[in-house]
Amino acid sequence: MTVQLDYSNVLDSAIGTRHGLSVDTLKQQADEARPLFTRLQEQRQSETLGFFTLPYNEKLATEVRNYVASIRERFDAYVHIGIGGSALGPIALHTSLNSSGYNLNQQPKMFFPDNVDPDWLAEILPHINVKKTLFHVVSKSGGTAETAATLLYFMTFLKKELGDNFYRNLLFTTDPHQGLLNRIANENPIKCFRIPPNVGGRFSVFTALGLIPAALSGIDIDALLAGARQMDTLTSRDNLFENPAFMYALIHTEMMKRGKNISVMMPYSNKLRDIADWYRQLWAESLGKRVDRAGNVVHTGQTPVKALGATDQHSQVQLYVEGPNDKIITVLEVNRFKENQPLKNPFPYIEEFNYLEGHTLGHLLNTEKAATALALRNNQRPNLTIKLDKVDAEHVGAVLFLLETATAFAGELLNINAFDQPGVEEGKIATYALMGRKGYEKKKTAIEQMLNEQKTYIIK
Amino acid sequence: MTVQLDYSNVLDSAIGTRHGLSVDTLKQQADEARPLFTRLQEQRQSETLGFFTLPYNEKLATEVRNYVASIRERFDAYVHIGIGGSALGPIALHTSLNSSGYNLNQQPKMFFPDNVDPDWLAEILPHINVKKTLFHVVSKSGGTAETAATLLYFMTFLKKELGDNFYRNLLFTTDPHQGLLNRIANENPIKCFRIPPNVGGRFSVFTALGLIPAALSGIDIDALLAGARQMDTLTSRDNLFENPAFMYALIHTEMMKRGKNISVMMPYSNKLRDIADWYRQLWAESLGKRVDRAGNVVHTGQTPVKALGATDQHSQVQLYVEGPNDKIITVLEVNRFKENQPLKNPFPYIEEFNYLEGHTLGHLLNTEKAATALALRNNQRPNLTIKLDKVDAEHVGAVLFLLETATAFAGELLNINAFDQPGVEEGKIATYALMGRKGYEKKKTAIEQMLNEQKTYIIK
Repeated sequence: MTVQLDYSNVLDSAIGTRHGLSVDTLKQQADEARPLFTRLQEQRQSETLGFFTLPYNEKLATEVRNYVASIRERFDAYVHIGIGGSALGPIALHTSLNSSGYNLNQQPKMFFPDNVDPDWLAEILPHINVKKTLFHVVSKSGGTAETAATLLYFMTFLKKELGDNFYRNLLFTTDPHQGLLNRIANENPIKCFRIPPNVGGRFSVFTALGLIPAALSGIDIDALLAGARQMDTLTSRDNLFENPAFMYALIHTEMMKRGKNISVMMPYSNKLRDIADWYRQLWAESLGKRVDRAGNVVHTGQTPVKALGATDQHSQVQLYVEGPNDKIITVLEVNRFKENQPLKNPFPYIEEFNYLEGHTLGHLLNTEKAATALALRNNQRPNLTIKLDKVDAEHVGAVLFLLETATAFAGELLNINAFDQPGVEEGKIATYALMGRKGYEKKKTAIEQMLNEQKTYIIK
Repeated sequence: MTVQLDYSNVLDSAIGTRHGLSVDTLKQQADEARPLFTRLQEQRQSETLGFFTLPYNEKLATEVRNYVASIRERFDAYVHIGIGGSALGPIALHTSLNSSGYNLNQQPKMFFPDNVDPDWLAEILPHINVKKTLFHVVSKSGGTAETAATLLYFMTFLKKELGDNFYRNLLFTTDPHQGLLNRIANENPIKCFRIPPNVGGRFSVFTALGLIPAALSGIDIDALLAGARQMDTLTSRDNLFENPAFMYALIHTEMMKRGKNISVMMPYSNKLRDIADWYRQLWAESLGKRVDRAGNVVHTGQTPVKALGATDQHSQVQLYVEGPNDKIITVLEVNRFKENQPLKNPFPYIEEFNYLEGHTLGHLLNTEKAATALALRNNQRPNLTIKLDKVDAEHVGAVLFLLETATAFAGELLNINAFDQPGVEEGKIATYALMGRKGYEKKKTAIEQMLNEQKTYIIK
């Protein structure tokens, strides 16, 4: 496993003192941050930060492998019912490590309906036989409105086919003791996996909720966890100046102080595209906070943006190079691709194509990356590269763990709680109220009154 | 066709004077902007802004329909070779108007390989019979490195099967006269459609490059163009205060002045997700500019972000509500969905699910939207809603045309050229140089020297 962090292009020597960082200052900051590191390491020991220990849970990996082996013959389709942290990790594993045409010729067909768009959910039905479909419901509380509604939606079709035996096609991953899914499992013999209480949704990709669909679709979950463990040795370095997770966090928080309120994650690889989407939740929900730990109102956070190289050179790079200098761009670069055929020019009369001849597509892709990084650098735009030797389970595990740890470090550097999400409560409560959920009657009246009093401006 | 713009939640009456806009001021600004409107209308007459007239080209629609009918039997797969503006529009049409499981049971199978990731391209091959695959190559110049390389890549397989007859499986959409694709078409009888010279890539969705894959996959291109024409009547209103495209542009540029450097496009609909991706290019590349028309260095632009409701309530909304107040959020809301079954609770002992019973998924989705808009409003976060009656070709055509026109207006309000992209030249030239293209030898030496002199900082 080789994952490297190249931060040459965030330094003042590359992009000038107005936007760039000084190596000496970074070194000093890394020294001074030792107490933060110690605090994180202590929390890890006391297991309040459960995600750190997940890659070491080989018992779970064995249990998942055995479970998957025991059910594989029964199902030719898999529907993952979960949203946010319950879905983004599994989706990133699936799209980065399985073929983009997976559902066209592999089984079980994999579906991740992580939204309540009715037309989109209905489009899944023609492609599955619900009798032979495993529905994996993932929710800590079981009460998430979208997850509950999606479960109800599919159960209508499943009960029609299986009647009271519908539970045979259900699998739950939920809290060890509490919540609605446990109550359902008390009424029916439904297999349950557990999300440790000290692991938050956006840090949960290495729990059963991520490992089960991965193993079921043929991903090597042992290699995945091994990659995360290998990264853990790098991100546990107490020389923080050589710790890639800490340096990622430090560079980003320093850039935030310089007004870079946008963090672009730009894989030069279609396979890694949904890792950028997973990162969006991790970075946004962990760091987007109203108050710091001392209770000061800080409205901190950096907006993560998912981009794709080389494609977005034809979409976003004009803005990145010429627009406001308000972002830091992290490129994920892949060193070796599987497909390695050199290009040939079938149009000999078009000599303008000759320069491509003999080169692989991977070489072109990485040359585009180098050219873009250079253009960004020449325009004083800070950019980082995380370089993976290749796209496989081990490297994907390593990158996910690197970014999780970097996020935890960034929370320390910003002195905020990176593990809660108080800002989403208001919307959840309003949804329950407007949907007429029991216990929210007063809130409903209050909201309806508020909405009625609002003057609306609509162009028709 | 009903598309409405609700801007209640950007007003000072909703979100306070620090972040909100005053209706009276907007009205006055709309009055004062009349000369900009006149200028745009004049350019439209003189056809320097070709995109305005595309929806009226019924001759092209007929030609596309006839072409598609003439070849449909010959092909069971379609591969679209293009990048940026040559791909984002066709992809948005395909994913918004065809089923997400289209390739599982419909023909021709549709592939849009808009990147040179070798492993991702290789994943297409097992699913097509190249002999029965139409390769549609889209490029104005024909020289775009990624498009050329992708063409070369697939041609190796096609020539192996068809030999000198390979051209029978090619279709080009390119400039009327110039460029490499025309030179290839001069050597082989390849059907060519044209991109009008006065239509830029990101404004080209209603040319042949968008209409052909749409028609081939069964999308009603007449309804698409009709929707755009209907929107044109709204976006041609000379009372700019009632003109949805102008008001979209005005509100966004005013928000830019208030430090909102991020424009979130958040459909509450999976089907409309890639319209947000298409918008990313339109908004970023058009408005991200170093200089204004007077030559002043302005580094203007607003970073577009693609989000998805309700999914991103579990990913981004924590940041949107509690983080920096640095964005304006545009929601795309769908009034009516096709799937309309009310939910049932199959778990009678879980009364916590009862509130969902009798409601449709669409009702839940739109309630989530209302709740989120309310939470954003209560936290002084500006947000707009573009409301579509439903997702069909007519409404999609209308929304695309609305956003194109809004972008043109925004360029006028910012006094920049919204139709060029000078900032991507540097990267293109560096790519040609590093790949060893003829004529770039000196540049290559210079870049290699620059790269060699750079000190690198890499954590391994």
